[in-house]
Amino acid sequence: MPVLRHTSACVVDTSSSPFARLRPLPVNAVRLDDAFWGPRRQLAREVSLPLQHEYLERTGRLDNFRRAAGQQEGPFEGLYFNDSDVYKWLEAAAWFLATDPDPALAQLVDRVVAMVAAAQQPDGYLDTYYILGNLAARWTELPRSHELYCAGHLFQAAVAHFRATGKTTLLDVARRFADCICDTFGPEESGRQPGTDGHPEIEMALAELARATSDRRYLEQALYFLNARGYGLAGGDEYRQDHKPFRELDQMVGHAVRAVYLAAGAADLYAETGDPTLRETLERLWLDMATTKLYVTGGIGARHEGESFGKPYELPNERAYAETCAATGNVLWNWRMLLLTGEARFADLLELALYNGVLAGYSLDGRAYFYVNPLADDGSHRRQPWFACACCPPNVARLLASLPGYFSSVSDQGIWVHLYARSTADITLPGGQQVRLHQHTRYPWEGGIEIEVDGAGEFSLFLRVPAWCEDGASVRVNGQTAADPAPGRYVEIRRAWRRGDTVELSLPMPPRLLASHPYVAENAGRVALTRGPLVYCIEQADHPGIELRDLVLPGDAAISAEDRPDLLGGVVALRTHARLVPPGPAWDGTLYRTARGDESSASAREVELLAIPYYAWANREPGRMQVWLRRAPI
Amino acid sequence: MPVLRHTSACVVDTSSSPFARLRPLPVNAVRLDDAFWGPRRQLAREVSLPLQHEYLERTGRLDNFRRAAGQQEGPFEGLYFNDSDVYKWLEAAAWFLATDPDPALAQLVDRVVAMVAAAQQPDGYLDTYYILGNLAARWTELPRSHELYCAGHLFQAAVAHFRATGKTTLLDVARRFADCICDTFGPEESGRQPGTDGHPEIEMALAELARATSDRRYLEQALYFLNARGYGLAGGDEYRQDHKPFRELDQMVGHAVRAVYLAAGAADLYAETGDPTLRETLERLWLDMATTKLYVTGGIGARHEGESFGKPYELPNERAYAETCAATGNVLWNWRMLLLTGEARFADLLELALYNGVLAGYSLDGRAYFYVNPLADDGSHRRQPWFACACCPPNVARLLASLPGYFSSVSDQGIWVHLYARSTADITLPGGQQVRLHQHTRYPWEGGIEIEVDGAGEFSLFLRVPAWCEDGASVRVNGQTAADPAPGRYVEIRRAWRRGDTVELSLPMPPRLLASHPYVAENAGRVALTRGPLVYCIEQADHPGIELRDLVLPGDAAISAEDRPDLLGGVVALRTHARLVPPGPAWDGTLYRTARGDESSASAREVELLAIPYYAWANREPGRMQVWLRRAPI
Repeated sequence: MPVLRHTSACVVDTSSSPFARLRPLPVNAVRLDDAFWGPRRQLAREVSLPLQHEYLERTGRLDNFRRAAGQQEGPFEGLYFNDSDVYKWLEAAAWFLATDPDPALAQLVDRVVAMVAAAQQPDGYLDTYYILGNLAARWTELPRSHELYCAGHLFQAAVAHFRATGKTTLLDVARRFADCICDTFGPEESGRQPGTDGHPEIEMALAELARATSDRRYLEQALYFLNARGYGLAGGDEYRQDHKPFRELDQMVGHAVRAVYLAAGAADLYAETGDPTLRETLERLWLDMATTKLYVTGGIGARHEGESFGKPYELPNERAYAETCAATGNVLWNWRMLLLTGEARFADLLELALYNGVLAGYSLDGRAYFYVNPLADDGSHRRQPWFACACCPPNVARLLASLPGYFSSVSDQGIWVHLYARSTADITLPGGQQVRLHQHTRYPWEGGIEIEVDGAGEFSLFLRVPAWCEDGASVRVNGQTAADPAPGRYVEIRRAWRRGDTVELSLPMPPRLLASHPYVAENAGRVALTRGPLVYCIEQADHPGIELRDLVLPGDAAISAEDRPDLLGGVVALRTHARLVPPGPAWDGTLYRTARGDESSASAREVELLAIPYYAWANREPGRMQVWLRRAPI
Repeated sequence: MPVLRHTSACVVDTSSSPFARLRPLPVNAVRLDDAFWGPRRQLAREVSLPLQHEYLERTGRLDNFRRAAGQQEGPFEGLYFNDSDVYKWLEAAAWFLATDPDPALAQLVDRVVAMVAAAQQPDGYLDTYYILGNLAARWTELPRSHELYCAGHLFQAAVAHFRATGKTTLLDVARRFADCICDTFGPEESGRQPGTDGHPEIEMALAELARATSDRRYLEQALYFLNARGYGLAGGDEYRQDHKPFRELDQMVGHAVRAVYLAAGAADLYAETGDPTLRETLERLWLDMATTKLYVTGGIGARHEGESFGKPYELPNERAYAETCAATGNVLWNWRMLLLTGEARFADLLELALYNGVLAGYSLDGRAYFYVNPLADDGSHRRQPWFACACCPPNVARLLASLPGYFSSVSDQGIWVHLYARSTADITLPGGQQVRLHQHTRYPWEGGIEIEVDGAGEFSLFLRVPAWCEDGASVRVNGQTAADPAPGRYVEIRRAWRRGDTVELSLPMPPRLLASHPYVAENAGRVALTRGPLVYCIEQADHPGIELRDLVLPGDAAISAEDRPDLLGGVVALRTHARLVPPGPAWDGTLYRTARGDESSASAREVELLAIPYYAWANREPGRMQVWLRRAPI
């Protein structure tokens, strides 16, 4: 019987993974007491989590388990993959139990866990859609059934629950189901049934279950599912990531969430196996995505059709899909790539997706979500409290719940700080030293970060210098310049630390204007405003009576940052001047006309422009929004 | 018993429509002997029509009728609306029988007609999907069933067949089915079943059947189906044009083909009823489409998702949907609007959609079709010989078959010439005079048109001066300036004509650069090349080794027209110089970076640029294509 490892509540526990460079911290090792993430996590815990539970009840998602357990009469309700919403909610709740003990929540979790356990079949199978429908059809519709996808979310919830609480109630359910899956699926020559799921997820879940239980069988099974892709077992198409064997992939295509979940699973498997073909494939895919298919917000998925990636440079703004779950998956994948490599580019992208692509999906009041995250809108797109396909709400919740676990890691060399926020981190180094780091900062609003080292011994401190911090970054220890930080790299400070040593990292964050690669058709002649990790947008609410599409930034626009504690929960807004250049009168009632070079009106007047963080849009009265702004040639 | 009117083979016979200004000519009244449409019609007749018949056989579409008639064993094959492809093919064949008598084709048509007739149920019902599947379910699934849609195509084919051949074999089938439909559907208080189809088509078909049979019952039924829309009977959504009552529509939304077919039907109903609310609605919808939702090619439907219109100014190029059937439907709608009003704007749009949006869907060898017509491509989009949903191929065929009928019309005032091509038209004026018009022209390659009037009497000749002919149009009769033509209007020449009078219309067609309304996001800073009615594009095949996306037209580009009989079946190509401005090296592996105003390389070299008509693209080796070209500021 392999040993259970309830050592720590890590999001992805690479502590014993031979091919991972970094080892994560437990989610409860970092206490965020900042003004940005702290209140958001509190909101998620106090408002969103109970509301989501209410929707799980109201929409029959929990009743499906009661009915599958024979505790209630009635048919399956909703979409066939709805079990996964319950599991993702459980995962979110579990991480919160680790960071913010709450007896009432613990009781509720116990009740839901018991409900899930009661629905499990004698042989370990667990999927209420098939249990309540046609159990004989189980495992026969893998391209569409989401059975292994739901199983994966169960396993992730179970591991989180186990690591957070030490309880094995849900883990036992997961293992029984995982054993059933291992007994069922395998290559033809094994006498088992060939198969792999139409929606990747089981791969990273089984890898994590293997870590939590030290049972390599689950790892082998995850590898089998990955290797089985590309032969038509999961539908054979790009949408289901089954058009080619994984190691032959050279582009991110098809359904964006499926693609990043699969890549995240492959990264987990590389961490355990060191298979270089996995690493090479992941590198190819990451470069393809990051250099041709990524929104400036870290969102991914250009097309509504198939919720999919587009071709290279196909990045429409108003028609962006950029599903909240895809940005979340981007965080999951880049987190694993970071653990494998310690390379800052993965942390940069994680941070970008987190602050912008994911967070825009979550309303400031914690009560509503975007599924789709356009980069321009006419005011008609609004967040919803719930969806028939409700993947996004609990995905946001589980990410926020586990967020402290993403801030720092350790390696044999020392401590890595990936993300910045006022916080305290309790870290055990490989040699056993205990170190506490206090971060004092107003990040993401200010780029000054003071880290107080409460501990002693020789080790390195690796501090991420974001790629956006293009020049002027500096780092001092006890007032003395200590290293030469380069953007997009971790700066390493190695020394014999003494209790009370203070590191001052300065990451200047002047407002920046970003341009797109010239092949991004909609962004030609346009710029995006950013500052630090945040992408900004302009919104109608700040520009009454102004047609946002007519705003043109002057080539030499001076942009100032303005602290606005009154605005949208407290933000730093950006302020500048723009010219209002409406279409000339010759365009009235005309869509095309002979080009005369005076397509816009000559009579331009100057207006004040105020940009807000993209994540905060659509929290006031409906109105137009734009990330990419026209700019006059310099 | 109403009288059958086999007076003439008109496409839409408004001869007796009280609210139509124009009366069409029979398709066989105009003989095209030009080098553009003549060979294309011959190709359609000799190559495409037999090939399409072969596909109708090979894919079970004809077998479905044999099986429904009990002549063959077997289940229904293919998609549930596949009967319509047979009917559209029959309609195409019928129009060709009118213009190009062909005993072998006539025999084949007779056989297919007999096959269709044999499948009809005793009560007149005819839909092989339901006859072969579940006849009890007939009329119960109107939102998706396409039963009335298929019926509509049967009626249009039957009217064409009757008008072209005088035979009533198919018309009898149509009338029996139409009677069945009239007996079945109606308002609740009539004791009949409320309902209307998820795909408009029946409206224009019943209107035409009413004209052909002088049976107003069919007209009333068409009105019922139109008026029944917007109350959820057809699914209740925009996609099915059932989200609002027709007269409350103020925007073109939802499925583009459905939207224009419905509008075409409403135009037919206005022609008969004069209901001003129909006319007002049509005007609103037309303006919405023409000024905010129309591709420069006359194509419509911006979105792959739902094959639908986008929001105003949402007109992506590479992701355009612009279905060939939607452009065809645009021709059908504008033809009816033209017949109602005699306004040149409708003929302009008809011509634009015909030469560009429709024709691009048809390969130069007559063997392949586009369903989707992007305005930019990376070379992966290629025409196909057939589709599972094969609406487009026979739609192109029936339009080309009936095309001569679109060239001229008559009114009480005289003769209207809408389209130009070397041709002879035999026209009977309302007073009974016979007039023959000979058009001598190389249109669309040259703008000089000589019309020889072979006939005598006082009447007006209305010649369309296209809106694209922005200045310099002139008209002379027997060498004397005769009127002052204005672009986008018909110029009227009223006189007592004598046999041999010659009209010279000059429509100068210099190459033009068109700009888009500034709100079309992808076209900012771009221009489209056009000449006469043709939209041009650049294609990789003419620019080996050049990255088309790097081409930038100088602000003052001089463009020359070049006769190229060797190219693509003979075209006038456009030639100019452009600069090759690749992304600067700083963009290597970078999607976003700080805007510096040097997003493109400074080292630009000049290259020759050759543009070909858009309709001719993708007829050589695969490669990139672009309609909208970057242009340097003037």
